[in-house]
Amino acid sequence: MVPLPFELSEYKGRLARVRAEMAARGLDLLVVTDVANQHYLTGYDGWSFYTPQVVVMSAEDEEPVWLGRAMDAAGGKLTAWMRPENVVGFPEDYVQRPDRHPMDWIAAWLDSKGWGRRRIGVELDAYYYSPRAHASLVAGLPNATFVEADLLVNWIRFVKSPAEIAYLRQAARLAEDAVRTAYEVIDVGVRECDAIARIQAAQVSGQADFSGDITALPPTILGGKNASAPHIMWSDRRFAPGETIAVELAGARRRYTAGLARTIQLGTLPAEVSDTGKAVLEGMEAVLDAMRPGNTAETVEAAWKGVIARYGLRKESRIGYSIGIGYPPDWGEHTISLRPGDRTELREGNVIHAILGMWMQDWGIEVSETILVTGRGSETLTRFPREIRVK
Amino acid sequence: MVPLPFELSEYKGRLARVRAEMAARGLDLLVVTDVANQHYLTGYDGWSFYTPQVVVMSAEDEEPVWLGRAMDAAGGKLTAWMRPENVVGFPEDYVQRPDRHPMDWIAAWLDSKGWGRRRIGVELDAYYYSPRAHASLVAGLPNATFVEADLLVNWIRFVKSPAEIAYLRQAARLAEDAVRTAYEVIDVGVRECDAIARIQAAQVSGQADFSGDITALPPTILGGKNASAPHIMWSDRRFAPGETIAVELAGARRRYTAGLARTIQLGTLPAEVSDTGKAVLEGMEAVLDAMRPGNTAETVEAAWKGVIARYGLRKESRIGYSIGIGYPPDWGEHTISLRPGDRTELREGNVIHAILGMWMQDWGIEVSETILVTGRGSETLTRFPREIRVK
Repeated sequence: MVPLPFELSEYKGRLARVRAEMAARGLDLLVVTDVANQHYLTGYDGWSFYTPQVVVMSAEDEEPVWLGRAMDAAGGKLTAWMRPENVVGFPEDYVQRPDRHPMDWIAAWLDSKGWGRRRIGVELDAYYYSPRAHASLVAGLPNATFVEADLLVNWIRFVKSPAEIAYLRQAARLAEDAVRTAYEVIDVGVRECDAIARIQAAQVSGQADFSGDITALPPTILGGKNASAPHIMWSDRRFAPGETIAVELAGARRRYTAGLARTIQLGTLPAEVSDTGKAVLEGMEAVLDAMRPGNTAETVEAAWKGVIARYGLRKESRIGYSIGIGYPPDWGEHTISLRPGDRTELREGNVIHAILGMWMQDWGIEVSETILVTGRGSETLTRFPREIRVK
Repeated sequence: MVPLPFELSEYKGRLARVRAEMAARGLDLLVVTDVANQHYLTGYDGWSFYTPQVVVMSAEDEEPVWLGRAMDAAGGKLTAWMRPENVVGFPEDYVQRPDRHPMDWIAAWLDSKGWGRRRIGVELDAYYYSPRAHASLVAGLPNATFVEADLLVNWIRFVKSPAEIAYLRQAARLAEDAVRTAYEVIDVGVRECDAIARIQAAQVSGQADFSGDITALPPTILGGKNASAPHIMWSDRRFAPGETIAVELAGARRRYTAGLARTIQLGTLPAEVSDTGKAVLEGMEAVLDAMRPGNTAETVEAAWKGVIARYGLRKESRIGYSIGIGYPPDWGEHTISLRPGDRTELREGNVIHAILGMWMQDWGIEVSETILVTGRGSETLTRFPREIRVK
């Protein structure tokens, strides 16, 4: 048995909150297709989501059920907290075949449990749940009623418990180490791939007393012309003199992720980079001031926008999002976004990755913090000098 | 502009083959939702698939169109070979909102191109294409006819060109280095996370003359009780004396992936591990003998099964699959599988990751090779001693 990240009582509390929301929506079964949500509810952890995998919660049973590939049920028994009978594998001859689909088998299994006439909530916009998978589920349960339940669990995840915050603090240490390593290794003539290798090693080796996990997004290092594009991957390109390099890194501890972005200047800081950097740092102060319980997400963004407008700058994209459990391809929770129109009131226990990325025509800078909303205001979990590092 | 991995003529050939298959199926538009297929057709590369992203090919236009998040269109212009007008971003205010979906905007864009009444093939079982995304596409194009086109592109990818094989040979060098590093670093008392850090660094730093990419699956190291479960992640657990440790690693070069699995024994080799290892090595010889043009996939599996049956062993799951471009969560191509019932005739240019994983009650071993089907037989791209390494 792999040690569970939390006490059993933590999982029971999560289930109770999900069940209350199911009742409020009149759902008597929930099919959880989002891998991060599956982990949140069961502790299950493994790189098995390349074949269909769901967690099912009924209104009445104490334990949820994990269903995935038979080969991976062994991993389910090692990592999930439920009794072995609630870790169920679909047969190997359902894997990637044109004439059948794992969700056919899972639908039949749900029917065999007597759940074929239920009102079933399904997460319909999760990463590893396909239109074909859903069509198989619907066809296999012709007497059920299907209701979109996207983000039902995510909106419960968006308030973190003290135990979750403790992991996020550890993750922040890993993120700081990753940026510290980037500062050390990035230099003129160094290949991007060699910098990434060192940074990943810092993320994964972790600390003397705890390891790091794979981060949901790989490290991004945006130097030279690539800095105009936020999600380009590394190559064997060498850093050149004069480059402005944005690094967007993270640390992940038991899947809980803290993001941290910073900017490095090789050689003299150009005036336009310096000016934009100044606006961004002042903008971050405004974000931190506005980030407190009762304020809405859009208020925080407006505070930022007010600052950068004074510098003659604007930014179309959102400036932050709720962060927590991360599985590829995303560590964002898809709930709170810091942008106009998001009237979510911030609450104690929210954790926001505020990322101020300015991608200009052929350069870009980024500065971010992972921020905990506290009882009275906010606290940055990540703690690292914010200024553009000139090297 | 990031250097394209291939000459433009390579992409033109791929498009011609896809277009021929579209014509054969009576499709006049194809919506490619699989990220690996998108890369295959356009060269586009970026970690942007956490928001919806598609590539669209019409029957008549020379160039495909990439559509994704506006922020990532900059990356599209840097990495894809098409003219800038064929890299299209959906507006930022469509990102992760309850009241609208990026596929609403994409459907409207397709309609504006005059494609609203077409017979449209869509990959319906790809990672990162959700039921909600597809529902938005269908609702936005009420006069179109939708046809499942899953694996259409994959079955074209399954024969590799010489240029692709050259990348796979480089990937095999990276995979060998990863296993060599695992042999060096794994030892009694070492933490799993520290071993992973060193292995990933070898994968990514690559060689003096070329870098490595992120592998679609992270390194798996299955030691102790975890070895019974094939896809468990690392932790800060320390390797203990007497453990049998399976390592499933890979190298990725310009996204082309070669897999390589081996087994390490810390201390004396137990008789049952030794016996199983002997069966597996003999089984691999049988696989390599049977792997030649004209033989079917199931024939190869039958050759393996014949060998291990003589040792009193059996294995339920498939023993290999077509491999090539890898994006998380999978480097398998979802076409050829070495298992009963797969009557695909092997062809010159197929590349198969044959992975002989025996996961027993509380231990497991793995041995794999990435194998090229040649004109007359086969050739292992990965070259590394196969025996269980006793340390």
